[in-house]
Amino acid sequence: MVKLETPSAQYAITVRLQCPHAPGWLARIASVIGEQGGAIGAIDLVHIQNKRSLRDYTIECSSSDHARRISEALNAIDGVTVESVSDKTFLMHLGGKLSIASRVPLKTRADLSMAYTPGVARVCNAIHDDPRKSFNLTIRRNCVAVISDGSAVLGLGDIGAEAAMPVMEGKAILFKEFGDVDAFPLCVDVHDAAGLIALCKAVAPTFGGINLEDITAPKCFEVEEALRACLDIPVFHDDQHGTAVVVMAALINASKVLALDPKSLKVVVAGAGAAGAACTKMLLEYGISDVVVCDRAGAIDRKRTYGDNAMKSWLAEHTNPEGKSGTLQEVLRGADVFLGVSAPRLLGREDILTMRERPIVFALSNPTPEVMPEEIEDIVGVLGTGRSDYPNQINNVLAFPGIFRGALNVRASDINSEMKRAAAHAIAEIIKPNELSPDYIVPSVFNRKVSKAVAKAVAKAARQSHVARRVAKDSETWI
Amino acid sequence: MVKLETPSAQYAITVRLQCPHAPGWLARIASVIGEQGGAIGAIDLVHIQNKRSLRDYTIECSSSDHARRISEALNAIDGVTVESVSDKTFLMHLGGKLSIASRVPLKTRADLSMAYTPGVARVCNAIHDDPRKSFNLTIRRNCVAVISDGSAVLGLGDIGAEAAMPVMEGKAILFKEFGDVDAFPLCVDVHDAAGLIALCKAVAPTFGGINLEDITAPKCFEVEEALRACLDIPVFHDDQHGTAVVVMAALINASKVLALDPKSLKVVVAGAGAAGAACTKMLLEYGISDVVVCDRAGAIDRKRTYGDNAMKSWLAEHTNPEGKSGTLQEVLRGADVFLGVSAPRLLGREDILTMRERPIVFALSNPTPEVMPEEIEDIVGVLGTGRSDYPNQINNVLAFPGIFRGALNVRASDINSEMKRAAAHAIAEIIKPNELSPDYIVPSVFNRKVSKAVAKAVAKAARQSHVARRVAKDSETWI
Repeated sequence: MVKLETPSAQYAITVRLQCPHAPGWLARIASVIGEQGGAIGAIDLVHIQNKRSLRDYTIECSSSDHARRISEALNAIDGVTVESVSDKTFLMHLGGKLSIASRVPLKTRADLSMAYTPGVARVCNAIHDDPRKSFNLTIRRNCVAVISDGSAVLGLGDIGAEAAMPVMEGKAILFKEFGDVDAFPLCVDVHDAAGLIALCKAVAPTFGGINLEDITAPKCFEVEEALRACLDIPVFHDDQHGTAVVVMAALINASKVLALDPKSLKVVVAGAGAAGAACTKMLLEYGISDVVVCDRAGAIDRKRTYGDNAMKSWLAEHTNPEGKSGTLQEVLRGADVFLGVSAPRLLGREDILTMRERPIVFALSNPTPEVMPEEIEDIVGVLGTGRSDYPNQINNVLAFPGIFRGALNVRASDINSEMKRAAAHAIAEIIKPNELSPDYIVPSVFNRKVSKAVAKAVAKAARQSHVARRVAKDSETWI
Repeated sequence: MVKLETPSAQYAITVRLQCPHAPGWLARIASVIGEQGGAIGAIDLVHIQNKRSLRDYTIECSSSDHARRISEALNAIDGVTVESVSDKTFLMHLGGKLSIASRVPLKTRADLSMAYTPGVARVCNAIHDDPRKSFNLTIRRNCVAVISDGSAVLGLGDIGAEAAMPVMEGKAILFKEFGDVDAFPLCVDVHDAAGLIALCKAVAPTFGGINLEDITAPKCFEVEEALRACLDIPVFHDDQHGTAVVVMAALINASKVLALDPKSLKVVVAGAGAAGAACTKMLLEYGISDVVVCDRAGAIDRKRTYGDNAMKSWLAEHTNPEGKSGTLQEVLRGADVFLGVSAPRLLGREDILTMRERPIVFALSNPTPEVMPEEIEDIVGVLGTGRSDYPNQINNVLAFPGIFRGALNVRASDINSEMKRAAAHAIAEIIKPNELSPDYIVPSVFNRKVSKAVAKAVAKAARQSHVARRVAKDSETWI
């Protein structure tokens, strides 16, 4: 048997196959699947006819190739016919992952006369007289746009608007599941910053907030900054701030586990894109002064020039207090924390050994981290990745549903630094001091307490920082 | 008792009031409501405490003022306290009329790994390799944008994007209820034709079709024409074509009722906006050659000039074969059909008397028709309005849900004339010859057969006119 990666649900297939309806056949089929390294989930009987049985075998595989090999091996069994093979992930996406439903009945003329003409005209007039009423009388109260130009999708790069849709739909269902936020994906075929800004401004009257997603750096900085300045609804680029909030939470708890003062940590950040820049800003705002950021060319210092990348120029001015230059490996020596938001396999065990003893390593490149956990697990103090199959999964879904839930609850006009910091602390505090351990510094993405705690903290911070526009009795309650 | 208009659901209120819990009180309250002209719907007991009862009275009123008078009269009864008055129409709109739901489970890590990262990357790649797959693997398969700039909303005019939202949300729930189409409203703060065209092009990768709505003429013509030319998804301005399709259906059946040849009818159209222009084009395409269109200045003829209104210039060239000039009243003499898509109370009984005997009158200005039905019901052959409280309600909801359902079912790249004509015939044919009568030429908006029949006819016409891109076995079946 060839050594294979672990089979997983993302590569699950359903194989519909026919075989003689007689003792021994199911075992024979199951053992072929096992020999090929597939993990059998459900087996459903479709029917038995003419002494032959038709069954659906759901099989987890480790890759698309592996799935193909299993199907071929099954079809090669004498007496067995594979009728169809369907990919469970593709089946799940068939027709898209969202539906739009009516919240009101529409069965009688009376319903129609209230929800639509002529009654709706009074509601329109009320909003025309006072546009703030749109936050109560339309979907703005709970609806967020997830907007992407498809220019930096997952690790896939600039794949365009159509191909980005499955990710944005996925984001929308996470918003609903974890934050009870109605989110609608808009994948747009505009690619310059000015065009994106104009588009978001244009659609703003429809939404209570805008979540920018998977927009390439440095364009994403310009777009977000311009929109925050001109719109009165929160605009939040999740690749920046969602990541930064969860990293901050993880760092707070990792420091507790290792009994370190977070403010005195020496941090090296690999990656000066959306996530790297936002994480760095959040670390600086938290009071961590010794941060060195590296891009592909090495440490960002005050000697290099950065063309029209204003963010890198900003980082050069505000980080790297000792003026270190050189490669990532060079500046990593003696650091307490490595934060990777960059690319796969940049570092090896020997690099981590140059850091302080038992350092904090967050290697968030996904699915392949900057340094493989297996190489370093015995020499690190705390290790986090973006993956669910290692401990300490640092995942944005811990942040964005609760952040928007809190912002919408108090009708915040912005998601500011105070609110993001409150979110980071709320995530960190979900884990009680006696539960904290090197393997448990961030809660599970399925922990339902997280988004509620984040929403409450964010709403409070919004009020305290004067961006909350609804300060009702129930503003802290979960809608 | 003052004479009042009929109470209706659109002005329903719920009055929560307290009164002594003793015999006779409910009757006393009900009789005050009756004296004030309110119609009582439900009466719900909230609780009885300290010998006082608290009840919710749902009361249909005839206007907001009337609702206020009723509440005051109730509060004036000695021993009665009105605790709150809520407007049922506004209550229905609270928080908006739509919700966005997930079509897939998201309860386990396996779900997450298929619906979102890492599994979703394979779906993105598949669409990147072949963008046509976006029509199967994203919400494009069933999702239509309802896009408006809020420049011509109902009879309210240019009320802007925020205030237009309740109408677009209403449209979206009609799409769902009658066509099983997922529709999302986008009210946009862009107001020139070029900006609207750019915006619709930009968001097109998200949707399977675009329904333009409540955009003022002549801008709407330019926007729709440009988008139909450059996009590969259907773009349909409902105020134009939805109206035209239902008017055409009504005219076909009215002609049958009066045993007239529709092609030989002399038609006068009042209104050269979106609906007037589209109805006129559809009548001409059907083969009706004698159509005279009037705007505020009178008949559109070849003597007047129309500035930069290209649509009026087009109408001047293609209608009015006898070159009539003059006011609406003047050109109406001797006409067989009056079609009003303009403004309230333009005509009186004396004007209708100058038409042929027992003419066809479609007075669609809403809520107040071009001529009041009560004035002319004894002298017309067939009368239709836009209202539900007269016979023959000519309402777009008979057309657009089925038209988009049919177009999406076959993944049509356009909604062309053939498809619109097929929709008109399908609507007309819902009423069997033996059912047709002057009071019954169009089906009820609640007749569930309509959108199914329209979808089927539109899908067939799309295939025959070569704009269908999915010709699967099931393409005629209802999704």
